Amino acid sequence: MLDPRPVGYVIGLILAVLGLMMIPPMLVDIAEGREHWQVFFESAVITTLTGVLVSLACRNVRHREISIRQGFLLTVGVWVVLPVFAAIPFMLGATEARFVDALFEAMSGMTTTGSTVFSGLETLPKGLLLWRGILQWLGGLGIVIVAFLFLPIMRVGGMQFFKSESFDTLGKVMPRAIDISKALLGTYLALTMVCVLTYVTLGMGAFDATVHALTTVSTGGFANTDSSFSAYDGPIMYAAIVFMFLASVPFVRLMLVGSGQFRPLAMDFQVQAYAGAILFAVLLVFALRAALGAPLDEENFRHIAFNVMSIFSGTGYGDGDVTLWGAAPFVVLLTVGAIGGCTGSTGCSLKVFRYMVLFKALGAQLRLIGSPNRIVAPRLGGRPIERDVTESVMLMFTMFILTLGVMSVALSLTGLPFLEATTGAWTAIFNVGPAFGGLVGDSGALTAFPDAAKYVMIFGMLLGRLELVVVYVLFTGTFWRG
Amino acid sequence: MLDPRPVGYVIGLILAVLGLMMIPPMLVDIAEGREHWQVFFESAVITTLTGVLVSLACRNVRHREISIRQGFLLTVGVWVVLPVFAAIPFMLGATEARFVDALFEAMSGMTTTGSTVFSGLETLPKGLLLWRGILQWLGGLGIVIVAFLFLPIMRVGGMQFFKSESFDTLGKVMPRAIDISKALLGTYLALTMVCVLTYVTLGMGAFDATVHALTTVSTGGFANTDSSFSAYDGPIMYAAIVFMFLASVPFVRLMLVGSGQFRPLAMDFQVQAYAGAILFAVLLVFALRAALGAPLDEENFRHIAFNVMSIFSGTGYGDGDVTLWGAAPFVVLLTVGAIGGCTGSTGCSLKVFRYMVLFKALGAQLRLIGSPNRIVAPRLGGRPIERDVTESVMLMFTMFILTLGVMSVALSLTGLPFLEATTGAWTAIFNVGPAFGGLVGDSGALTAFPDAAKYVMIFGMLLGRLELVVVYVLFTGTFWRG
Ligand SMILES: [K+]
Ligand SMILES: [K+]
Repeated sequence: MLDPRPVGYVIGLILAVLGLMMIPPMLVDIAEGREHWQVFFESAVITTLTGVLVSLACRNVRHREISIRQGFLLTVGVWVVLPVFAAIPFMLGATEARFVDALFEAMSGMTTTGSTVFSGLETLPKGLLLWRGILQWLGGLGIVIVAFLFLPIMRVGGMQFFKSESFDTLGKVMPRAIDISKALLGTYLALTMVCVLTYVTLGMGAFDATVHALTTVSTGGFANTDSSFSAYDGPIMYAAIVFMFLASVPFVRLMLVGSGQFRPLAMDFQVQAYAGAILFAVLLVFALRAALGAPLDEENFRHIAFNVMSIFSGTGYGDGDVTLWGAAPFVVLLTVGAIGGCTGSTGCSLKVFRYMVLFKALGAQLRLIGSPNRIVAPRLGGRPIERDVTESVMLMFTMFILTLGVMSVALSLTGLPFLEATTGAWTAIFNVGPAFGGLVGDSGALTAFPDAAKYVMIFGMLLGRLELVVVYVLFTGTFWRG
Repeated sequence: MLDPRPVGYVIGLILAVLGLMMIPPMLVDIAEGREHWQVFFESAVITTLTGVLVSLACRNVRHREISIRQGFLLTVGVWVVLPVFAAIPFMLGATEARFVDALFEAMSGMTTTGSTVFSGLETLPKGLLLWRGILQWLGGLGIVIVAFLFLPIMRVGGMQFFKSESFDTLGKVMPRAIDISKALLGTYLALTMVCVLTYVTLGMGAFDATVHALTTVSTGGFANTDSSFSAYDGPIMYAAIVFMFLASVPFVRLMLVGSGQFRPLAMDFQVQAYAGAILFAVLLVFALRAALGAPLDEENFRHIAFNVMSIFSGTGYGDGDVTLWGAAPFVVLLTVGAIGGCTGSTGCSLKVFRYMVLFKALGAQLRLIGSPNRIVAPRLGGRPIERDVTESVMLMFTMFILTLGVMSVALSLTGLPFLEATTGAWTAIFNVGPAFGGLVGDSGALTAFPDAAKYVMIFGMLLGRLELVVVYVLFTGTFWRG
């Protein structure tokens, strides 16, 4: 039997922290002189109290080690339980949201997806806007920690490729979990601060700079206005491009940059492939748009670079209707969204590393089929790719595609038209943010989607953010029987 | 070095046969009293002569065995060389086609795709209509032989699961290749005859019955009129449903039915899953259409069953615009097209078997991740699925999806709008036949597609029909170096 109490203990603690994180939005609303602060006060009390009570109820086992299976349960539990409580301010607050909308927004936040069901963002209390930013920031931090601590040991999606000998079992990782998390948090905080300062320096207001920094470094994509990034000028957009890139490269490399070592980042095989792919996609879209008559100027280049980087990294900021660019650029954007950033970042989707493994494995197997006597193991970054890694990656790719198909069907069953259903599944599974089609509001909000579609997307965002496997494992009978 | 002469010898022979197959259309045009017969006479002379000359040039090595690598080259060579010659009647004949259109039609025929660039089919000489039917029939026969003789030994897409001990090397297969091909041909001919007789009995004219039988048993889908199957009444449509099903179940099971044994067909794990999936898809679409207000009557049921069977089997006959059914039924149809019929049939696409392996492997790996101490090998049809089979299937699935993505991008780069580009890639890669969108003519013809798009689709049809791997292997350097 699986003992859920160590899991409950940790979830309770994290829930209490989530409650405490409602204090900054409360303070902002107080500073603005709005009654709305009470919403966050009540939500914080409910959330913190529940967290503390759950932890107390499970406290007797807190010294026990967490098993791999409890690790899965913990990860899924965090991303199921926290969004429910994170949704409370949207129900009690100015958005007066129904449960489905509040949960959608909270899940979209904590999974760093960035799809929204709210429009008229400009009119919302600043506390709520900050809350959306904090949710994404927390979600991004959480996923970086999970990717570093758990995924390599869990053998999820080939992440065992990155398993270091000093952390190859949970027994070795857990004692240092707190230290590691602190180190990751330090780098994440530093990146966020630099991003805030850059945005402010370039002319963004302090509040907008803060929220946008929170949603940039988490590749979340929530913005403070319906028009997303189209309100900002050139320098700010270039800054956003840089920070979206940094947010989607491996975090362990960024930590070294913090201590002055740029080389590990620049020489990382995944980062090099990622940068190359971004450049290629930007130039391709630029050429395609030019072929369709768009001017070859800096403004056009900037918008293209911004949107490619935004979707490639899975951030999802927009600055206009990209479907108007024509079919070819649009399909390129959908494609880069299905690739995503680097493993071990806040970025989502399948990620560059897995495509590299896939292509290497495909090449190796094709050579094997054509000439069975020459066996050459594929390599990446100077290391051989174990068969186990290849299998995990192909498994994950297969699951992503099948899930994308099933989710497209499910969304069309809820009544969504073709484009909305397919891009809705795409944006949820790959945690990108924007969806396309006539049912999507001018502001990009998915308010008009049927409730059933919203629930399907809520589940899809959860699935995608936790790399599918982590959730699907819970649906196997043997997981629960031990 | 790879000796191409044994390959040239066989291709030459098959080319000569292709030339001889132009005689029936010639006779039809003569019987109709049309000058058009000269087109087939000239084409037959060119094709047969070329074939004989190529064979003669390579004849000195005809007793040598064919290696696996030569098997790949032969398979790809047949589907590249034959369509070029098969295109001649479309260039010289009443269609007066440019090379790209003629090649498109011939490749669509020999790959049993069934997409067409010609409209006003009713006005064409009967010889040309019969030629289109013969091309699909030959293509279907060819693929059944390849699937039986080559694919299991080539380890393509998990087909080694079906490798029998008496045929586990080319050395054991080749001496019996002629016998096996004759047996397959006998069954194929018998199925075709029964289909012709059934269509005639139910009221179809003898000529239409013949051509439609040729394109039914090959899951090809070329029809004799722009309106495809909408001209026919209920009984004929039900008959087509039955024969499309038979054409997409494993051929070795059908051979046994010919000798009175129904049990192997009925008990085949793949056939059972296929039949279940068809039934499920029909009922799902029926329920979806009913929910959208369509009447719950036999006519509606018949059209749904016909279209589901047509796309599931990869035949591609149409009887109206299915995009008008609504997004959900349309997405279901796209999905079944990406599944396809059974392995070892004339059907195309990924096929039921591979999805069964995928789901078994996914389940097994998820259980392994969740509880690493319990190792249970997945089984199918009472036999364990080797790791090698799983890997091949995942490889093929991955390649199909990536190719679908790349081809969608490529088609949109040629200027096709989103729906045309994505469904065009889908129909080419999965060899289904119909594409959708405003650029597709009312008759379903792809005449208005840009030439570049047609070439991309020609390559896509070739790739899909040869299960990708067989073509891609030729692009590895080691294949040519040995
Ligand atoms: K996002
Ligand atoms: K077809």
